[in-house]
Amino acid sequence: MVSATATTSSIAQPWRTKSSWEELVKQKILSLQDDLPAAWRLSVELLERYRPSSLDHSYIIDAGKVLHDAPFFSDHEFNITEHNTATQLVGKLARGELTAVEVTTAFCKRAAIAGQLLSCLTETFYSKALDRAKTLDEHFKQTGKTLGPLHGLPISIKDSFDVGGITTTCGFVALLEVGQAKKNAPLVDMLLDLGAVLYVKTNVPQTMMTADSENHIYGRALNPLNTALTAGGSSGSESSLVAFKGAPLGVGTDIAGSVRVPALCCGLYGFRSTADRLPLFGQESIRTEFVYRGIPKIQACAGPIAHTMEDLELFMASVIGQQPWNYDSLSFAVPWHTSFEAKTDTNTKLRIGVLPEHPEAPLHPPVRRAYHEAIARLQKAGHEMIHLPEDPATDINLANRIAYQYYFYGPKKADLLAASGEPMVKSVVGHINPLFTGDLPVSMEADLTTQMEGLWSSRAKYTDAWRKVWVDNKLDIVLCPGAHCTAVAHDTWGWPFYTAIWNLTDFPSLVIPFGRVSKELDPDGFPAKSHSQPGYDPELIDGAPCGVQIVAPKFQDEACLWAGKIIDRVLHQ
Amino acid sequence: MVSATATTSSIAQPWRTKSSWEELVKQKILSLQDDLPAAWRLSVELLERYRPSSLDHSYIIDAGKVLHDAPFFSDHEFNITEHNTATQLVGKLARGELTAVEVTTAFCKRAAIAGQLLSCLTETFYSKALDRAKTLDEHFKQTGKTLGPLHGLPISIKDSFDVGGITTTCGFVALLEVGQAKKNAPLVDMLLDLGAVLYVKTNVPQTMMTADSENHIYGRALNPLNTALTAGGSSGSESSLVAFKGAPLGVGTDIAGSVRVPALCCGLYGFRSTADRLPLFGQESIRTEFVYRGIPKIQACAGPIAHTMEDLELFMASVIGQQPWNYDSLSFAVPWHTSFEAKTDTNTKLRIGVLPEHPEAPLHPPVRRAYHEAIARLQKAGHEMIHLPEDPATDINLANRIAYQYYFYGPKKADLLAASGEPMVKSVVGHINPLFTGDLPVSMEADLTTQMEGLWSSRAKYTDAWRKVWVDNKLDIVLCPGAHCTAVAHDTWGWPFYTAIWNLTDFPSLVIPFGRVSKELDPDGFPAKSHSQPGYDPELIDGAPCGVQIVAPKFQDEACLWAGKIIDRVLHQ
Repeated sequence: MVSATATTSSIAQPWRTKSSWEELVKQKILSLQDDLPAAWRLSVELLERYRPSSLDHSYIIDAGKVLHDAPFFSDHEFNITEHNTATQLVGKLARGELTAVEVTTAFCKRAAIAGQLLSCLTETFYSKALDRAKTLDEHFKQTGKTLGPLHGLPISIKDSFDVGGITTTCGFVALLEVGQAKKNAPLVDMLLDLGAVLYVKTNVPQTMMTADSENHIYGRALNPLNTALTAGGSSGSESSLVAFKGAPLGVGTDIAGSVRVPALCCGLYGFRSTADRLPLFGQESIRTEFVYRGIPKIQACAGPIAHTMEDLELFMASVIGQQPWNYDSLSFAVPWHTSFEAKTDTNTKLRIGVLPEHPEAPLHPPVRRAYHEAIARLQKAGHEMIHLPEDPATDINLANRIAYQYYFYGPKKADLLAASGEPMVKSVVGHINPLFTGDLPVSMEADLTTQMEGLWSSRAKYTDAWRKVWVDNKLDIVLCPGAHCTAVAHDTWGWPFYTAIWNLTDFPSLVIPFGRVSKELDPDGFPAKSHSQPGYDPELIDGAPCGVQIVAPKFQDEACLWAGKIIDRVLHQ
Repeated sequence: MVSATATTSSIAQPWRTKSSWEELVKQKILSLQDDLPAAWRLSVELLERYRPSSLDHSYIIDAGKVLHDAPFFSDHEFNITEHNTATQLVGKLARGELTAVEVTTAFCKRAAIAGQLLSCLTETFYSKALDRAKTLDEHFKQTGKTLGPLHGLPISIKDSFDVGGITTTCGFVALLEVGQAKKNAPLVDMLLDLGAVLYVKTNVPQTMMTADSENHIYGRALNPLNTALTAGGSSGSESSLVAFKGAPLGVGTDIAGSVRVPALCCGLYGFRSTADRLPLFGQESIRTEFVYRGIPKIQACAGPIAHTMEDLELFMASVIGQQPWNYDSLSFAVPWHTSFEAKTDTNTKLRIGVLPEHPEAPLHPPVRRAYHEAIARLQKAGHEMIHLPEDPATDINLANRIAYQYYFYGPKKADLLAASGEPMVKSVVGHINPLFTGDLPVSMEADLTTQMEGLWSSRAKYTDAWRKVWVDNKLDIVLCPGAHCTAVAHDTWGWPFYTAIWNLTDFPSLVIPFGRVSKELDPDGFPAKSHSQPGYDPELIDGAPCGVQIVAPKFQDEACLWAGKIIDRVLHQ
């Protein structure tokens, strides 16, 4: 039978922490309290007023009110953080209209507030950030030039990216004992070389493999739009922080939907690029120390979460323009090219393949409504909508079965849990059972070589079926739901049906927020159908954002964002 | 102990041919005789005059004389085939100065002659080619336009590329019984869509893993420059045919040097691109039917062999311009970009890293002389030559050890030999023993997962060390020998030290012919030092071409060819 620990027997040296997991957590929590600057602490009175009293009832954190009431947060800081996209910020910084210190201070403070209300931060390094901001300002003053295209822009990064001297746990208590990262991940070096300011790392689920960002060390990340709902995962604290505007732009990673799901849950834009166009190697202590990388698997990849399409593009073009392959030999030396841009004019009409709703992953009523509304608007705007037939060769349940089996051969989660003895959090427990219907594509009884070969063949055949769909229908992109649901009650998300498929095929994919749940328009709730199919509770999730997903073939990241901008204008004009 | 059959135990269904290998070969030879048009057969008298009487003595095939004496080969056909590069041919075809039928007829005849003298062909389909040429001419006549950038250009392809209705054996007798390929490999479809004319497939070594293109079915490909020497392998018949000008351009594949080694042996230009920029999937019946693809390995890749740098570029730009990813979902959707071209002007000075000669792979005297001469000329031309130090992290013997172990997990050659019971040819026997010094990087005793992980780590670390070399020295490219030897006596080549390293790292690499063996300048011969180090016999190899290799980092194929053109001008001006 299927078991999530199937590959753990081959680990050479079992490892156990010296201290108990409870002791490790206790010590860490004390030191985290010290890390928060005294001047930026919310009073007990404010915490009581604004923190949710329960996670079972809908509750919106009113950022405007909290920030107004926080005595250390100025109107100027509010304006900087509230009314500027990342693109606008780099423009103002480059023109000298804002200093890096002003911008960094504002985002550090707003992030510190977010951390206290939303548990969305792991490690913080505010004073380091402010020192860097000063250096950037001096450079600008002396040379009249920016250090790079992201000069002075605060960017939050997921906990899994190593920053030299800072702890990386990926939500595993055992990794507290491994100590601080020895050096920066390549992407961290790149962002610094581009002029960005790093100041916080963000929270993740224990194991990094669920859509609920909860662990025993840093707690549970909350969704500021409704604290009764998940912020998504595994980059759920990026979406939480960016939605609260504690960061203008954040970087997550995605192996099954971990950038797109949180973006969707928090009403943001999230982009999963083709694997290895952005650097990942060196990311996560668990990857370099404890994870098999030599056998085929679904490759995780980095991706931005932001408030606009323009900001996603700013990130992608800047990072790839900085030539990741000079930092990380696993990153592809493929320039960011503008050949798709050249095609764009106001009359560009796209050929859009429309993925049908899958009978085994039925859309929640508001998601279905938003999806149909998006299709109708695009059609009205003159884009050619090609409704793709159901086809066993491109079946998304098949994709999920192949993907699920591939994840077996990935991170050896169970060992890192066993190392400290910490219990699984609820969302991890929920992931032990298969989250799809039908058999695994390849027998787990076969020897590993045969399993790998069978999986590879299934995946290659599946991916090639999608190539045929694109070519036969002359598609620019495929439109599909971002998920079968919106943000739902904590620990009930289940399996990311509509996102994992594009990790399996390694197709760049983008979530664009569109529409909202309405208990008036979508009144008929229903309970969970299985552990992979969360229930629909219109009362609880009223107002939660919906979103659609735009997909392009592997390596056509530029096409994905190009089409995304056209579609975004139609949906939000 | 090391064994070439280490992974064969896991094959599910052993397969045996119905007929004996001798019977299969006998039948095939009869049918091949029928395939050669009667009008294009060389008389017994001409065959006796021009075929070598022994493979032990130096003998140059004088193409001019043979072609003059062949009664069916006209002066016009001689001029077409003798005095035009591929680039010149497509120009003349596009301007209507030559017809596709004229050009195809000329190359079919010259290839047929090459086949009779050099055993460089496997399957031929001349009448199909002439039918296609007629269609192309009609298209051109009716529309005034070419079908594509390769309109009317005859291109030869290695046996391993499937052509629908044509047998693919890759040198294995057993595959004669598998029958004809059901459909075209993606690259074959692409070449046809680009307007090319396919007319012959070319010979390979049994197993496709040696530098001597010999097998029991089609015999041994000969080097027209000296029939006592290998034409190289495994694309040794591409170089043989192109060197004889029986094809203006040919397509081989390279997993350890199989494009570059034959190019070097026959004084031609050969390019191994980054894996999966050109389509390979669907190539080789043995790959789709009998080979594990699901476990990590060194990825073979396609590459052109030609007479000029310009022709290599014509091939790469045309094929990638045709968007391989629309034909093959394993091909990367990375456009052929000209950002490197833009840098070029007559004063461009390159920063060239110079690889030191390796003590365990010492260069034969004429190779060393040519290498030093190339370095001196480049230096004189003003390019910055950075002599790279010996460094354990980038040691080429380490690369060869890692590569050799990776090849274990690749094609299951032994089974395809056992399937028909054919004996190994001599060059395959020579490859059973390790062709390097020192231990394998990872114990073969460990379980497969651990082996794969260990190999991956070794490879990643090794590749990253080369990234550092590039970045720290601000290199454009690396210059290194194409091999430690030139073409040598049959079945003595040994291990491709200086090429396999770039398959391991997946760096695009290019062989440029430069210099020739001179028994006067390099008089001191020596015997073979081991089965991996062929002897140097100045008398036998006098006049054989030498060559240098140009290497760029992964995905920088454009940079490799760009720098190659600059260097080629310096070496041949």
